[in-house]
Amino acid sequence: MEELVVVKIGGNIVDNPALLTRLLKDFTALKCKKILVHGGGKVATKVAADLGIPTQMVEGRRVTDAASIKVVTSVYAGLINKMVVSQLQALGNRAWGVSGVDGALIPAQKRPVKAIDYGYVGDVLPHEVAVDGFDLLLHAGYSVVVAPITSSAAGELLNTNADTIAQCVAVALSKRYCVQLVYVLEKKGVLRDVDNPESVIKKMDYQSYQQLKAKSVIFEGMLPKIENAFDAIQQGVNSVTIGDGINGNGTIIE
Amino acid sequence: MEELVVVKIGGNIVDNPALLTRLLKDFTALKCKKILVHGGGKVATKVAADLGIPTQMVEGRRVTDAASIKVVTSVYAGLINKMVVSQLQALGNRAWGVSGVDGALIPAQKRPVKAIDYGYVGDVLPHEVAVDGFDLLLHAGYSVVVAPITSSAAGELLNTNADTIAQCVAVALSKRYCVQLVYVLEKKGVLRDVDNPESVIKKMDYQSYQQLKAKSVIFEGMLPKIENAFDAIQQGVNSVTIGDGINGNGTIIE
Repeated sequence: MEELVVVKIGGNIVDNPALLTRLLKDFTALKCKKILVHGGGKVATKVAADLGIPTQMVEGRRVTDAASIKVVTSVYAGLINKMVVSQLQALGNRAWGVSGVDGALIPAQKRPVKAIDYGYVGDVLPHEVAVDGFDLLLHAGYSVVVAPITSSAAGELLNTNADTIAQCVAVALSKRYCVQLVYVLEKKGVLRDVDNPESVIKKMDYQSYQQLKAKSVIFEGMLPKIENAFDAIQQGVNSVTIGDGINGNGTIIE
Repeated sequence: MEELVVVKIGGNIVDNPALLTRLLKDFTALKCKKILVHGGGKVATKVAADLGIPTQMVEGRRVTDAASIKVVTSVYAGLINKMVVSQLQALGNRAWGVSGVDGALIPAQKRPVKAIDYGYVGDVLPHEVAVDGFDLLLHAGYSVVVAPITSSAAGELLNTNADTIAQCVAVALSKRYCVQLVYVLEKKGVLRDVDNPESVIKKMDYQSYQQLKAKSVIFEGMLPKIENAFDAIQQGVNSVTIGDGINGNGTIIE
């Protein structure tokens, strides 16, 4: 099967012009088919604050009310997505920006209200990811830049976790491609010692992960990312890398 | 040749939920291939004002400084585009939103500074419109929703007149399709008497337009729109309609 790289960049990369440019250059240099999923960063929070819309976070997730969904749709699917696409094009990359809304590429549902009402937050319907829609662009030679906004069947716009989007897209496309999923962070990888940025764990399988987790070696916020990674592999993704770039360095999860 | 309808909706349609919904229903009902180009409306001006960014207009065009281009990219390519796409999908339409940036669909250049520096305003490079890119989506059964943001070869994001985008896209695609270009306004068409909303001029050719212009019958702001329409026809577009919907009523220019 042909190779496809799905790269997820976090908000702190988006917020840092020097890091972002370096990453976009590396992305442009990749010779295979490729998809870039970006988060939002602090821009949305800042714009919301400037508009007098307070940002409420619960368990690391933004509670998205009717005013906030307008802000994040504007900033993620508008400003950041088009900024990244135009920069990639200036670097010689045939980039095409999408959100999960366009062509119903990533159908989602509004998260059901349980203990917390997250508001306009979407949970991806993983089996409905439009593989044909992504493939249409990939086959025509475009690289695809994905903003983490989706919509429900009723037409509601939904703020959606970019890590989850990267995972769902990688899994869906693994039916047709040999998929490498790369999570790019500020850190060099999953660290054995949180105070030593060089203590990168080079390889991790599910057994070694369980051991590290039992010993509380792995940093709290990293747990869902790693669980996601193992999920992705179990569902057909070839490899997942967590690191500070797309150079192949970092923690390889397999 | 197969039929293609290119509909341009102005800002005052976008600003009016009832008018917008009616129009999106009519658009959904069109059986042929179709493209919808939307303007920005007052939302961008309001967001900019809320953020403390003043809006400066010269000769009906927004002067777009570095702060303003971020606002219009956010609102046009993010909020309005995704809102329209998700509404169309909820109505059963397979819609896909783009800006001129995506896939370099509508290449542009930053307007050269003459008497006025318009800032980040784009002039479309009409011969470079990516017909293959539009056709990729149209052939796959998607209708295309276009936000009036473009970019230069250097990667600068540019605010671009939506009427001009509609015209350039219609002309470019007229090489492959029998194109009908429809400008939707609040008025029922070009009026013989500006105080009588029913005095619609049903048909206009270039000769009758020259006569009406000489007699100052035609409303000032309508002139560039009509000139654009005749340009479009001369360059291969089959017909241009100016009216309050896509029902075929209004002024037909041929």
